[in-house]
Amino acid sequence: MTAAPAPSASSFGARLESVLATSGGLCVGIDPHPWLLDEWGLPTSASGVRELGLRAVEATAGSAGIVKPQVAFFERWGSAGFAALEDVLAAARDAGLLVVGDAKRGDVGSTMDGYAEAWFSPDSPLRVDALTVSPYLGFGSLRGTVDRARRAGAGVFVLAATSNPEARAGQTARVAGADGTSRTLAAGIVDQVRDDDQAAGETRLGSVGVVLGATVDLGSYGVDTASLTGVPVLAPGFGHQGARVSDLVSIYGPAAHNVLVSTSRGVLSAGPDGMASAVRDAAEEVRACLA
Amino acid sequence: MTAAPAPSASSFGARLESVLATSGGLCVGIDPHPWLLDEWGLPTSASGVRELGLRAVEATAGSAGIVKPQVAFFERWGSAGFAALEDVLAAARDAGLLVVGDAKRGDVGSTMDGYAEAWFSPDSPLRVDALTVSPYLGFGSLRGTVDRARRAGAGVFVLAATSNPEARAGQTARVAGADGTSRTLAAGIVDQVRDDDQAAGETRLGSVGVVLGATVDLGSYGVDTASLTGVPVLAPGFGHQGARVSDLVSIYGPAAHNVLVSTSRGVLSAGPDGMASAVRDAAEEVRACLA
Repeated sequence: MTAAPAPSASSFGARLESVLATSGGLCVGIDPHPWLLDEWGLPTSASGVRELGLRAVEATAGSAGIVKPQVAFFERWGSAGFAALEDVLAAARDAGLLVVGDAKRGDVGSTMDGYAEAWFSPDSPLRVDALTVSPYLGFGSLRGTVDRARRAGAGVFVLAATSNPEARAGQTARVAGADGTSRTLAAGIVDQVRDDDQAAGETRLGSVGVVLGATVDLGSYGVDTASLTGVPVLAPGFGHQGARVSDLVSIYGPAAHNVLVSTSRGVLSAGPDGMASAVRDAAEEVRACLA
Repeated sequence: MTAAPAPSASSFGARLESVLATSGGLCVGIDPHPWLLDEWGLPTSASGVRELGLRAVEATAGSAGIVKPQVAFFERWGSAGFAALEDVLAAARDAGLLVVGDAKRGDVGSTMDGYAEAWFSPDSPLRVDALTVSPYLGFGSLRGTVDRARRAGAGVFVLAATSNPEARAGQTARVAGADGTSRTLAAGIVDQVRDDDQAAGETRLGSVGVVLGATVDLGSYGVDTASLTGVPVLAPGFGHQGARVSDLVSIYGPAAHNVLVSTSRGVLSAGPDGMASAVRDAAEEVRACLA
């Protein structure tokens, strides 16, 4: 294990804290499903996903501070889809938005370095402020990725308890500890992420966060919201999937102010003409719940 | 849960069975690490990974039947890297090789459909014979991906017990069953994969397989090799990571004939001039162990 890199004045955690304070917690998911392209009158193609992505960035800028493009819907179109994603990422950076790449990458250490360089290198057209990553190969497999992110002033969100019901059995599996105790897989991820932020000296808001679905009964997953102090939480599950923004504080307790409230079809389904207004309303709703 | 699609005469499982019988189990991993590009005298760029990939395909054709490009090292270069990967995939198809895309994708169902279409659609430049996928969101989250793969005559390899030591704690976590018993996360994946192949009527070799690292003590992960009948096994961990091909039968027991023996730096480090001969030797070594 290498020494933790020194925290940077422009760390992801610090920048996220500033965005949360000024623009609030709304995170606009850019998920160009084929049926949304249809609804928007756009072609089901790389050019369609580029157009939807660019318009979603425009509709978000000024009303919310964070966007989260879903990489799968760009990857669908191969290299042309990635070129479209690069244009969307550039537009989001130019608009001053914080960008979370939702890619859920996860592999062994030396291979993860390839992904980390793709998403964090200053010279990469895919560079983002933070990336979602998957811990099936162990939190330790993400060591190099976390360090590379911190060095680049970027962040990662590690999947812990996801919003889909089929995930429950595995994410609540019991991991044995050295001292004879055990904890759930999800709680183990949360603990390791928090410890990593603290070891990096990030005492306010960390650069490494977790994904905790808003539809999840966190207590029954073994996750204590009191343990989330200083840990950014990316939260899918609001809207279509069933969770209500008005329950933000009751779901996340003391961590509610660290939460990125992800919404996608709730604003995208307003269409190209209605989206800016839908984003404004959704951003205001999140701010009002935390006022 | 939708009805299982009927098995196809040209299912991935049937094609894999034929390749294993004629060319043997060697699977050449195309992992263009930056240091390998240096060793090969190639630029550290999209053009370098394209060139290494194309030469690796040439060096494999005729001596082995399966290649496995590691997507991370192409993604490193953004859309240009994916364009390079598309060229390598096309060359591998033209050479008659079976192609496993090593991408380890994993997301919720409707998002996984985007990945499934990227890697399995007949019109996609990224189309492969099989894709590695990650089950952190539950085997159920892969339902649509498995069905799409089967319909396309493609396959998936689901991560179960990976070859890296940091994965052990999570992959041996105990998942509670409805009947009060429990099994490890890794064993649960193996059981669900085997059941899925059987439900699809694939009685010889299935189209859905598992990743089981050759460095793993499978018994201590709760995985019984007798349960692997008819399940293809993608096996990293040979060579540099420490497992020996001569131990193939002792590691995988009755499943040894279903194993894709993955090797990457073992043959790539022979360089552009030595690789064809290294692949020939490695393929022969695998065949000899099963003779």
